[in-house]
Amino acid sequence: MPDESRHILTSFEADLGRLRDMIAAMGGLVETELADATAALLSRDAVMAARVVEFDARVDAEERAIEQFAIRVLALRQPVADDLRQVVAALKVTTDLERIGDYAANVAKRTIILNEAVPAYPLASLAQMSRLVQENLKSTIDAIGEADPQKAMAVWRADQMIDDLYTTIFRELITYMMEDPRNISACTHLLFIAKNLERIGDHATNVAELTYYAATGETLPDNRPKGDLSATYMPRTDT
Amino acid sequence: MPDESRHILTSFEADLGRLRDMIAAMGGLVETELADATAALLSRDAVMAARVVEFDARVDAEERAIEQFAIRVLALRQPVADDLRQVVAALKVTTDLERIGDYAANVAKRTIILNEAVPAYPLASLAQMSRLVQENLKSTIDAIGEADPQKAMAVWRADQMIDDLYTTIFRELITYMMEDPRNISACTHLLFIAKNLERIGDHATNVAELTYYAATGETLPDNRPKGDLSATYMPRTDT
Repeated sequence: MPDESRHILTSFEADLGRLRDMIAAMGGLVETELADATAALLSRDAVMAARVVEFDARVDAEERAIEQFAIRVLALRQPVADDLRQVVAALKVTTDLERIGDYAANVAKRTIILNEAVPAYPLASLAQMSRLVQENLKSTIDAIGEADPQKAMAVWRADQMIDDLYTTIFRELITYMMEDPRNISACTHLLFIAKNLERIGDHATNVAELTYYAATGETLPDNRPKGDLSATYMPRTDT
Repeated sequence: MPDESRHILTSFEADLGRLRDMIAAMGGLVETELADATAALLSRDAVMAARVVEFDARVDAEERAIEQFAIRVLALRQPVADDLRQVVAALKVTTDLERIGDYAANVAKRTIILNEAVPAYPLASLAQMSRLVQENLKSTIDAIGEADPQKAMAVWRADQMIDDLYTTIFRELITYMMEDPRNISACTHLLFIAKNLERIGDHATNVAELTYYAATGETLPDNRPKGDLSATYMPRTDT
């Protein structure tokens, strides 16, 4: 029955397209969440930050909806080989996007409490870091929607800049804390905010790897220059 | 053909059992990794810490092996309904276990660099926190192996104690930094170590939720008292 088998193939392609669209839409929600969290941080806007924390529930709901749809596709279409791997990759991508949403919500939570303190540190580097992360996240979401492996690879490469900037900010914040202990608690929250941005960059990179794999069937090489050096930073303070 | 269908059913049960065993084994690796990372931290043993960082590659390899096996089970057995959800849950559990391994490796990385500094903070509370996290992780792995929903629920409940202890440690570390700025960089690494332990606790809870769901088909309620209050901690420093 060649006609029926063609029909089944087409339906599966349509399901896969819908799955990609759902993931791109979830990616759009996460992009908005991160952009708003950053805007709230930079403008010291606690009301906006509180809205971001609430918004995260929509991202979580979207993850569950995509998961249910993916499970239905697996059950009804019973895909094998490459098709199966694409659905499994989609399930993994939603986990990464959900985590990105969590990190953005945590930035917002810390923004609310930071507003109770005197500004401790010029936010320009954090603003720049967030801009890079947002660009990478946007390219990642575009790469999913367009199933574009080249775009995915560009994201994977660009993450190094984010890691470098994170290491710089980490060092600067430690210096600010040392110069004036009154900065310590605010700078600690800023450290965690920077760490959240760095983690969002990593998750965007994961998504890019999964997108590359889903589009080409090949994995990206393991030798991406891995870059968060802050875990090995220790200034001499005993002099 | 009742005989053949019974045969297929039994093979799928065997696959599911093997999947559970593989996950429990990966869980065992992660337990060892966390125990060793903690021991290295407490005994200031940089050599042991370096071994933990290397060990993490085995955990990552195990994740890939489980994923490949799960994809093969999906392709060959084409499970539906509850059976399908169990395989999908297994895929998600390995993602959580892999992240736990990453956090343990990060504890070890920071331990290596902490050994270059003067001890800045009594590690007793961190030792206690790690003990709780390790107990919870162990119960989680046992719950997977035994497919025991009651054990999974106990883990889910116990995470609150870990969150409370994290909040206490966070406050103590901020105080130590304020008292003596020479403590700042070491205490910052300890802050991230405590945060890593808290995140490991969260991932163990995720795994417990997935295990409960896989065993009962029901989700745990949403109203678990969520407890990391450190993101909203801001002492008054402007007096």
